[in-house]
Amino acid sequence: MSGRQQQEMQNVTLLGHQGVKYPMTYTPEILESFDNKHPYRDYFVKFNCPEFTSLCPITGQPDFATIYVSYIPDIKMVESKSLKLYLFSFRNHGDFHEDCVNIIMNDLIQLMDPKYIEVWGKFTPRGGISIDPYCNYGRPGTKYEAMAEHRLLNHDMYPEKVDNR
Amino acid sequence: MSGRQQQEMQNVTLLGHQGVKYPMTYTPEILESFDNKHPYRDYFVKFNCPEFTSLCPITGQPDFATIYVSYIPDIKMVESKSLKLYLFSFRNHGDFHEDCVNIIMNDLIQLMDPKYIEVWGKFTPRGGISIDPYCNYGRPGTKYEAMAEHRLLNHDMYPEKVDNR
Amino acid sequence: MSGRQQQEMQNVTLLGHQGVKYPMTYTPEILESFDNKHPYRDYFVKFNCPEFTSLCPITGQPDFATIYVSYIPDIKMVESKSLKLYLFSFRNHGDFHEDCVNIIMNDLIQLMDPKYIEVWGKFTPRGGISIDPYCNYGRPGTKYEAMAEHRLLNHDMYPEKVDNR
Amino acid sequence: MSGRQQQEMQNVTLLGHQGVKYPMTYTPEILESFDNKHPYRDYFVKFNCPEFTSLCPITGQPDFATIYVSYIPDIKMVESKSLKLYLFSFRNHGDFHEDCVNIIMNDLIQLMDPKYIEVWGKFTPRGGISIDPYCNYGRPGTKYEAMAEHRLLNHDMYPEKVDNR
Amino acid sequence: MSGRQQQEMQNVTLLGHQGVKYPMTYTPEILESFDNKHPYRDYFVKFNCPEFTSLCPITGQPDFATIYVSYIPDIKMVESKSLKLYLFSFRNHGDFHEDCVNIIMNDLIQLMDPKYIEVWGKFTPRGGISIDPYCNYGRPGTKYEAMAEHRLLNHDMYPEKVDNR
Amino acid sequence: MSGRQQQEMQNVTLLGHQGVKYPMTYTPEILESFDNKHPYRDYFVKFNCPEFTSLCPITGQPDFATIYVSYIPDIKMVESKSLKLYLFSFRNHGDFHEDCVNIIMNDLIQLMDPKYIEVWGKFTPRGGISIDPYCNYGRPGTKYEAMAEHRLLNHDMYPEKVDNR
Amino acid sequence: MSGRQQQEMQNVTLLGHQGVKYPMTYTPEILESFDNKHPYRDYFVKFNCPEFTSLCPITGQPDFATIYVSYIPDIKMVESKSLKLYLFSFRNHGDFHEDCVNIIMNDLIQLMDPKYIEVWGKFTPRGGISIDPYCNYGRPGTKYEAMAEHRLLNHDMYPEKVDNR
Amino acid sequence: MSGRQQQEMQNVTLLGHQGVKYPMTYTPEILESFDNKHPYRDYFVKFNCPEFTSLCPITGQPDFATIYVSYIPDIKMVESKSLKLYLFSFRNHGDFHEDCVNIIMNDLIQLMDPKYIEVWGKFTPRGGISIDPYCNYGRPGTKYEAMAEHRLLNHDMYPEKVDNR
Amino acid sequence: MSGRQQQEMQNVTLLGHQGVKYPMTYTPEILESFDNKHPYRDYFVKFNCPEFTSLCPITGQPDFATIYVSYIPDIKMVESKSLKLYLFSFRNHGDFHEDCVNIIMNDLIQLMDPKYIEVWGKFTPRGGISIDPYCNYGRPGTKYEAMAEHRLLNHDMYPEKVDNR
Amino acid sequence: MSGRQQQEMQNVTLLGHQGVKYPMTYTPEILESFDNKHPYRDYFVKFNCPEFTSLCPITGQPDFATIYVSYIPDIKMVESKSLKLYLFSFRNHGDFHEDCVNIIMNDLIQLMDPKYIEVWGKFTPRGGISIDPYCNYGRPGTKYEAMAEHRLLNHDMYPEKVDNR
Ligand SMILES: [Ca+2]
Ligand SMILES: [Ca+2]
Ligand SMILES: [Ca+2]
Ligand SMILES: [Ca+2]
Ligand SMILES: [Ca+2]
Ligand SMILES: [Ca+2]
Ligand SMILES: [Ca+2]
Ligand SMILES: [Ca+2]
Ligand SMILES: [Ca+2]
Ligand SMILES: [Ca+2]
Ligand SMILES: [Ca+2]
Ligand SMILES: [Ca+2]
Ligand SMILES: [Ca+2]
Ligand SMILES: [Ca+2]
Ligand SMILES: [Ca+2]
Ligand SMILES: [Ca+2]
Repeated sequence: MSGRQQQEMQNVTLLGHQGVKYPMTYTPEILESFDNKHPYRDYFVKFNCPEFTSLCPITGQPDFATIYVSYIPDIKMVESKSLKLYLFSFRNHGDFHEDCVNIIMNDLIQLMDPKYIEVWGKFTPRGGISIDPYCNYGRPGTKYEAMAEHRLLNHDMYPEKVDNR
Repeated sequence: MSGRQQQEMQNVTLLGHQGVKYPMTYTPEILESFDNKHPYRDYFVKFNCPEFTSLCPITGQPDFATIYVSYIPDIKMVESKSLKLYLFSFRNHGDFHEDCVNIIMNDLIQLMDPKYIEVWGKFTPRGGISIDPYCNYGRPGTKYEAMAEHRLLNHDMYPEKVDNR
Repeated sequence: MSGRQQQEMQNVTLLGHQGVKYPMTYTPEILESFDNKHPYRDYFVKFNCPEFTSLCPITGQPDFATIYVSYIPDIKMVESKSLKLYLFSFRNHGDFHEDCVNIIMNDLIQLMDPKYIEVWGKFTPRGGISIDPYCNYGRPGTKYEAMAEHRLLNHDMYPEKVDNR
Repeated sequence: MSGRQQQEMQNVTLLGHQGVKYPMTYTPEILESFDNKHPYRDYFVKFNCPEFTSLCPITGQPDFATIYVSYIPDIKMVESKSLKLYLFSFRNHGDFHEDCVNIIMNDLIQLMDPKYIEVWGKFTPRGGISIDPYCNYGRPGTKYEAMAEHRLLNHDMYPEKVDNR
Repeated sequence: MSGRQQQEMQNVTLLGHQGVKYPMTYTPEILESFDNKHPYRDYFVKFNCPEFTSLCPITGQPDFATIYVSYIPDIKMVESKSLKLYLFSFRNHGDFHEDCVNIIMNDLIQLMDPKYIEVWGKFTPRGGISIDPYCNYGRPGTKYEAMAEHRLLNHDMYPEKVDNR
Repeated sequence: MSGRQQQEMQNVTLLGHQGVKYPMTYTPEILESFDNKHPYRDYFVKFNCPEFTSLCPITGQPDFATIYVSYIPDIKMVESKSLKLYLFSFRNHGDFHEDCVNIIMNDLIQLMDPKYIEVWGKFTPRGGISIDPYCNYGRPGTKYEAMAEHRLLNHDMYPEKVDNR
Repeated sequence: MSGRQQQEMQNVTLLGHQGVKYPMTYTPEILESFDNKHPYRDYFVKFNCPEFTSLCPITGQPDFATIYVSYIPDIKMVESKSLKLYLFSFRNHGDFHEDCVNIIMNDLIQLMDPKYIEVWGKFTPRGGISIDPYCNYGRPGTKYEAMAEHRLLNHDMYPEKVDNR
Repeated sequence: MSGRQQQEMQNVTLLGHQGVKYPMTYTPEILESFDNKHPYRDYFVKFNCPEFTSLCPITGQPDFATIYVSYIPDIKMVESKSLKLYLFSFRNHGDFHEDCVNIIMNDLIQLMDPKYIEVWGKFTPRGGISIDPYCNYGRPGTKYEAMAEHRLLNHDMYPEKVDNR
Repeated sequence: MSGRQQQEMQNVTLLGHQGVKYPMTYTPEILESFDNKHPYRDYFVKFNCPEFTSLCPITGQPDFATIYVSYIPDIKMVESKSLKLYLFSFRNHGDFHEDCVNIIMNDLIQLMDPKYIEVWGKFTPRGGISIDPYCNYGRPGTKYEAMAEHRLLNHDMYPEKVDNR
Repeated sequence: MSGRQQQEMQNVTLLGHQGVKYPMTYTPEILESFDNKHPYRDYFVKFNCPEFTSLCPITGQPDFATIYVSYIPDIKMVESKSLKLYLFSFRNHGDFHEDCVNIIMNDLIQLMDPKYIEVWGKFTPRGGISIDPYCNYGRPGTKYEAMAEHRLLNHDMYPEKVDNR
């Protein structure tokens, strides 16, 4: 079979191994990366993660969100099964919505050193109000830093209709 | 549990206390704030509030709206349960739609001194017409003032379909 | 102008009078009726009421719902502006969702003595769960009693998608 | 050209004549019929009429609705351009929503003597409430009378979502 | 390759031959059938045909519709490419909407002698009104005749929302 | 009650008076304004008007549209009930779609002298085609003139899906 | 305040107490009930629960679902906050989708002894396939047993569109 | 962990083993079953399978469909990963749409001997027409045979809107 | 009647005349224009044309599309009934999708000499793929030429979801 | 027939020939081009391809996606049937999502040497996460290179809602 070869994927230890344990505490070290085969080009990769859940740090009640992660890779790319397990590790973790998206982005910057990245969380309501934090990042001193500022400046000018149903 | 600790939240008196009284008159002083843990980064927080209701100042009839609040925090952030109680305090308050969104934004600026903030109200129809006021603000003398002007200039170029059903 | 004449509407005191006061407590006596001009035929009238709000009897927090009322008139029909004011009178009233829909239906039976009536409330979520009570009624000892049983038996076999957003 | 021939359509005086005057008062006599070419079979014809408007008999304000008409023809069928002009004639006519649908159905029964017919009006809201009357009819003493009762019994068990936007 | 073999398909002359001419006049004889491999079971086959167009017999203007055909086969089944060409043959044909659906159903009964069949046309509006005729058929003297009557009796109790946009 | 006081609304003669006559001819002088309480800030007000109807100047047939009006107020703001009555006055008025939106905008400029305004009409189809005219205006010699040019330049790059149903 | 009084709610220990602990293992005993105030009438109560999550018993991976619960109460009704906590207790519980819905229904029958109840789970996909189990129950030896059979017989004849996005 | 235990699942060889080979030809023998833990109750299980693809037996071109499978289990239930692999085995298999759904249902009857089962395939269009076959089955000589006839009789009376986009 | 007068429309020969022949071959000369009454202002007019059909030049099979035309008029405007007849004239015309939109735009430039114009065709699929060509034009040597380049540069960055159903 | 002539299409060998073999391995050489008849103008062509399927290079499981391709042609244009066959050739090919979109774009650049091109893949979820890679290209040293950078900078600021159902 043509395409990605197994030898290119030696750092990928989780994909294709179903016996892997799901982490019960916040575990950023479970994230794995593989090499970008198209470093000659800037392009976007987006992950849609509608199965995110964490706990409220004050009341302990569960929170639910869809997390959207988009980035422009440089040398490394995040492997999707490790991302899944990483997001799972928030399952019994307590933090504010605004903190979760910042933490996720910080961990992915640490892993991949991407040119650009953004994270948007869209949470279900508590007390009739829902919260959607959004953060982004461009590598300092490069044009991607200006890109981050440009995208923040133009962020979400058409809020989606939310009626709590 | 990792994440936000209780000692970081000493100013938060409403969240986690269900016995709190709902205010029966317009009560901006009920708003509470907590500290931004990510002041090193500009990022957006959006609140979706589909359960807003006030009264018409002329006829006394109830008005209903979804209020969208988006802001870039500086030092302080608004706590969501206090925001819920604050919005509840418009329940028996009479004001025009255009005034409500301006007042809400003024009160949140007073509370948080944010870098940037915007408020959009989408009201249900009266007499076959519905009104959707939108206002925004960037801290004067900073790049956020230009941001506010840029976002107003490009505001709502795709009005959502409305058919009163 | 042909159509309904003013003399047919002598019991209708609220429609066309905008100075009417909005009742601040639960006020079933505000409901008004007018005569059915088509008593020779069974037919349905449905009211869609997406602006219903009441209070939780335990916590005092506001609840929001869309209320659907459908009925087959006999001699009397409910006038829509009085229905609006009646539903408004729940604004500061505390009751469980399940009780509200039963009370509304009981009051409309009292007013109109309809052949058949049903009331469905679809509330916004609290704690991640939303509640949708439905009750109906057919005049006892008539075929409409069997109609009520038939419609309950077949009620809501396709629950609408709810995702709290 | 095969299909309907012009000589079959001698009673159709409005279709294909664009100079026809639009009637300024309620004008049931403008309705025209043509012959059913498939009288050997029971089948349904539905008209979707989203451009209906009339006036409130008390306040004079305009009302708007989508009217759905469905029928099983016997000998005669209603011609669609005459139906359009007939519905136009309610434009300056004042009547309650509940009366309009009954009148429309009565006039179409008078014109066509159909085996079965039903009319459903879905109006836009006034005062936050919208009204959707529905009536039907089966020719007395035939199985279509039972059909009408059956369809009324099972009418609208899934009210469409209405949020006034 | 397992599955349908070429020798089973000897009457199918159009599928797989792209040079076939599109008929320029109404051509029911172009319809082709193949054998039902599952005659031991009653089952439904539905065709969704959103690309139907014909002409108005009075004005010559084009009409557009989505045609839905559903049937329970007995011995023969209609081949889909021949159905496509047959429906194409209405392209320059003038007939009323109500006649088109009856003609289509008659031709398919003639071709397949199905146990049961129904045809529903949903046309785009002319003069602000759209027309949706529906007819059905069950083989006379069998239980499918009662099936047709049952389905007509319960036809389209939830007309889809139409707003001409 | 806090909020807008009656003495601020002395020019508002229509709101709260239900006995007002609906004008039967084009009546721009019925428009009323009130004072902007937030002149220290640029902000948008949008009216959604899905109940607009006029007549074709050539054929006399009725036209239907949703009209969207958005503006940035300076000193004066248009009162919504007077806007409703003004739009009603097109009911028996004949004009092309393209002319209606220009006339509405001209009249509102005359009334309010706004900093910026735009009007978009989305009409229902005639002959299978629907027409959506859009015009805008920025006060000449101000930055709002450039704003109008910018918004026209970027207008409607994602036409909404229209299928006439 | 009229409506439900506190003395009617003595068995309700969780609602209004935010300090309640979230159970970390499957905990059916946390369910609480209160008295039905309308036992003279059969009516439906539906809970929409889009925030359900459990674990796969074989692989340990998280599963997500919306759970719909509908029932006709007899003497007792389930209190919604206790239902929320009960469903939370599946968070670290491993079971097949088909087992979860049966267990939930069994526990609610045990708590309330309802006349009728049904539970429908709609899970997110694994391996490109999603599973939606549905079970129901009518009290044996009553008409509600026949009701359960009737509703199963007619269950889900219009599967919702699923495309995994 | 409570719930399903590993020893109950001894016949399940594919779930939890990611190294399993995907079959390259039609392979009904890959289907696996496990025991129903709730045989005391009739209930439904539905599989949504939007990733089905096969080949046209005449032209070799790929076909795509969403397959819906619903059944009432008796003793055995189909394991979902084996179902996934089984459906994958049509990937290079050529058959007509109408044959595919019948074959899938026959193989599942062979595996599970269910009380009731139905299969609905909704294919993407070829030549502007799409085909949606539906078959069902109730165990002969039981009430489930009548159930199958009842559900076929009432099948798909509201065809979903299809516009090929 | 105020508004457009008949004497302003002397070049409009098709609107209001229903006896006009539909052209059977590509007929650009049928297009008619009328005068722009608002030449003092740049504004947009959009036509939504969901009833376009042509033929494939290679296979002769019919193609279907929605065509969107938007332009800024200078002196002349295209009359909509003539546009309808012009688009009809592609009914038996064979051309590639990419050519059709370019030809339509060229003919409208020839007719109106507009300041700016764009044409977007969205076709139904053939072989599982659909094609959506888009072209635009600004009058050379004016700011509208830059406008065309700007709009092409930013064209369609959010392709609508297409699933062929 | 006017329009594209056969002699213009001599390089097109696949369209109109249904006997063409579907390639069983990755086959970029199957792509065919034809001449652009409108080289005097920059315009966009978009292909919507919802029937893309490939294999995971690690596990062999099938992947499904909708692929969107948009480009501005120079001299050559890709013929759609050859594009269909080319995309089919990924059917048994194993590669990561991120690699597939880059490979497709590289092959189309090789074929057509377009001024500008972009490819967006939207895949169905695996393990609860879906991946949507996007890449683009502008001819180096031309304004289209800046265009590519501009479009990447503004890419996908409104991620579509994804809930895995
Ligand atoms: Ca919603
Ligand atoms: Ca209203
Ligand atoms: Ca709406
Ligand atoms: Ca809540
Ligand atoms: Ca929702
Ligand atoms: Ca709505
Ligand atoms: Ca029309
Ligand atoms: Ca529509
Ligand atoms: Ca539409
Ligand atoms: Ca999956
Ligand atoms: Ca979906
Ligand atoms: Ca569609
Ligand atoms: Ca196709
Ligand atoms: Ca095709
Ligand atoms: Ca679609
Ligand atoms: Ca979805």
